[in-house]
Amino acid sequence: MQQAPKAHPPLPERVDIVEVGPRDGLQSEPEFVPTARKIELINDLVGAGIRHFEATSFVSPRAVPQLRDAKEVMRGVDRSTGAQFTTLVPNMKGAERAIEAGVDALVLFMSASESHNLKNVNCTRETSLERFREICAFAAQADVPVQGAIATAFGCPFEGEVPVAEVVRIAKAYHEMGMRVISLGDTTGMATPPLVQERCRALREAVPELEVTLHFHNTRGVGLVCAYTGLLEGITRFEASIGGLGGCPFVPRATGNISTEDLVYMLHECGVGTGIDLEHLLEAAQQTETLIGRTLPGQVMKAGSRLKTHSMDTVATANG
Amino acid sequence: MQQAPKAHPPLPERVDIVEVGPRDGLQSEPEFVPTARKIELINDLVGAGIRHFEATSFVSPRAVPQLRDAKEVMRGVDRSTGAQFTTLVPNMKGAERAIEAGVDALVLFMSASESHNLKNVNCTRETSLERFREICAFAAQADVPVQGAIATAFGCPFEGEVPVAEVVRIAKAYHEMGMRVISLGDTTGMATPPLVQERCRALREAVPELEVTLHFHNTRGVGLVCAYTGLLEGITRFEASIGGLGGCPFVPRATGNISTEDLVYMLHECGVGTGIDLEHLLEAAQQTETLIGRTLPGQVMKAGSRLKTHSMDTVATANG
Repeated sequence: MQQAPKAHPPLPERVDIVEVGPRDGLQSEPEFVPTARKIELINDLVGAGIRHFEATSFVSPRAVPQLRDAKEVMRGVDRSTGAQFTTLVPNMKGAERAIEAGVDALVLFMSASESHNLKNVNCTRETSLERFREICAFAAQADVPVQGAIATAFGCPFEGEVPVAEVVRIAKAYHEMGMRVISLGDTTGMATPPLVQERCRALREAVPELEVTLHFHNTRGVGLVCAYTGLLEGITRFEASIGGLGGCPFVPRATGNISTEDLVYMLHECGVGTGIDLEHLLEAAQQTETLIGRTLPGQVMKAGSRLKTHSMDTVATANG
Repeated sequence: MQQAPKAHPPLPERVDIVEVGPRDGLQSEPEFVPTARKIELINDLVGAGIRHFEATSFVSPRAVPQLRDAKEVMRGVDRSTGAQFTTLVPNMKGAERAIEAGVDALVLFMSASESHNLKNVNCTRETSLERFREICAFAAQADVPVQGAIATAFGCPFEGEVPVAEVVRIAKAYHEMGMRVISLGDTTGMATPPLVQERCRALREAVPELEVTLHFHNTRGVGLVCAYTGLLEGITRFEASIGGLGGCPFVPRATGNISTEDLVYMLHECGVGTGIDLEHLLEAAQQTETLIGRTLPGQVMKAGSRLKTHSMDTVATANG
């Protein structure tokens, strides 16, 4: 068998995958997934080699009842491999609970567009930033790192285009608060290759010290194209959701997060290492479908890995 | 509103889209789609601005009953705009029928891998090439151009990897027969960005006169990534299927062709012109779902175009 050709220009040799299914995926599911099942899923993914998780969210149980068991989830996850568990935190109270639960880092989040921030967290962007400064000071005392997510970083469902300057402004503010890792969220699937290029380059120029994570949704079919564009820009940290768990809050029929296993498949085929066992991941994606009780959008779990050959006796073919 | 940034390195300014749904899509549907509906679909897509169609296939009605109305379809399609209608042709008899029906070009097809060719058309690749030489000579007398498709060009479901040398060998043979346009078919969704790069570069080197068309399946989620890779290689002709019509002959749950409207969405967002009205295409994709009676894999038809904004009063949001 021939060696797969290498991409040119060269892509990063290795990237980190952040699994967000337990948080971003499960919070949009209508049914509460039992705590023990959540822990099993996360620990199975640790077994597959994933080393970064957005494990849950310390938000109000009233606002997001699906994640009301954040503390218990954090208690059950497998810490033996050194896998990093971050959790989303909306305010000081959430930060206190998360730190008490022993998370590896807090993730603060706000939107790049004012109207989405107002709608999502009920305050202006300036108020979000003020609160974040307090939380960062508090977390620093506890010696817990803080990361920052920027929602609607590629477009806003209320405002349309989001100027790159807004993303840069928030990223600079995050950096000044002491954050070292930020994530650009493609909240409603509005990212495109040129926007990814533009935002990655602007951030590299303005705040080169920041590690930029990309978080894409496949709502308009181009989620993996945007990830590939990010690779070409030298990005080495991507968020994804097992099976493509999670939907789009605006369009019931539309897809949400890119699926972790499809992303890992693409990366490995492009010669980019992840440390993850794809076959194990495909099984985990299938089990997640069973857990959720519906078909998930991930493709490779349905088709199987690329070089799984078929017998000439047992299959149908079609011309062309 | 800001102007969308341009991709860098620059992509082609304009590409041709070849709609293959009426052939590659409908032939895998279990039900026969009535001739009048096929013609309506094609003519609606002509109205949307598509100018290249693989309209049907002059194969044995016994082998592919879904396309038994090839002659009637060709009689009904709208020729007023100069749109080009090609049809797949398996043998001399098919070529005679296609030419009699007034097609703009014949498309001959064989596989890059021996076992798939044996399974698909029941003869060796050498025999396929011999027959094609006769058909090309016949078509030349009738002054009808011939194009050549190469199936399993990125991998074979029976053999696994397909050496690039096999693809180049067939492309050279096609060129020697007088063909000017060829298509690389990703029959079971095994294309990856490095393989696309490798094959495009090898063909440009070996047979620079040939116009190379890329035909991807989204079976493993990376169909549009492969198309984007093709764009970066300067390819300006892509095949796709409205709504993502058509499946994978090997895996019932898996996806087939990339969807035309998602491809056109990506191209337009990247500043690449197609001459196609995306909104018209999205309506056509939705009508195709109704025609077929099941959900199709196209994403943009579900989510809507990118800058369709939502009211802040009427929608749900989710944190982060």
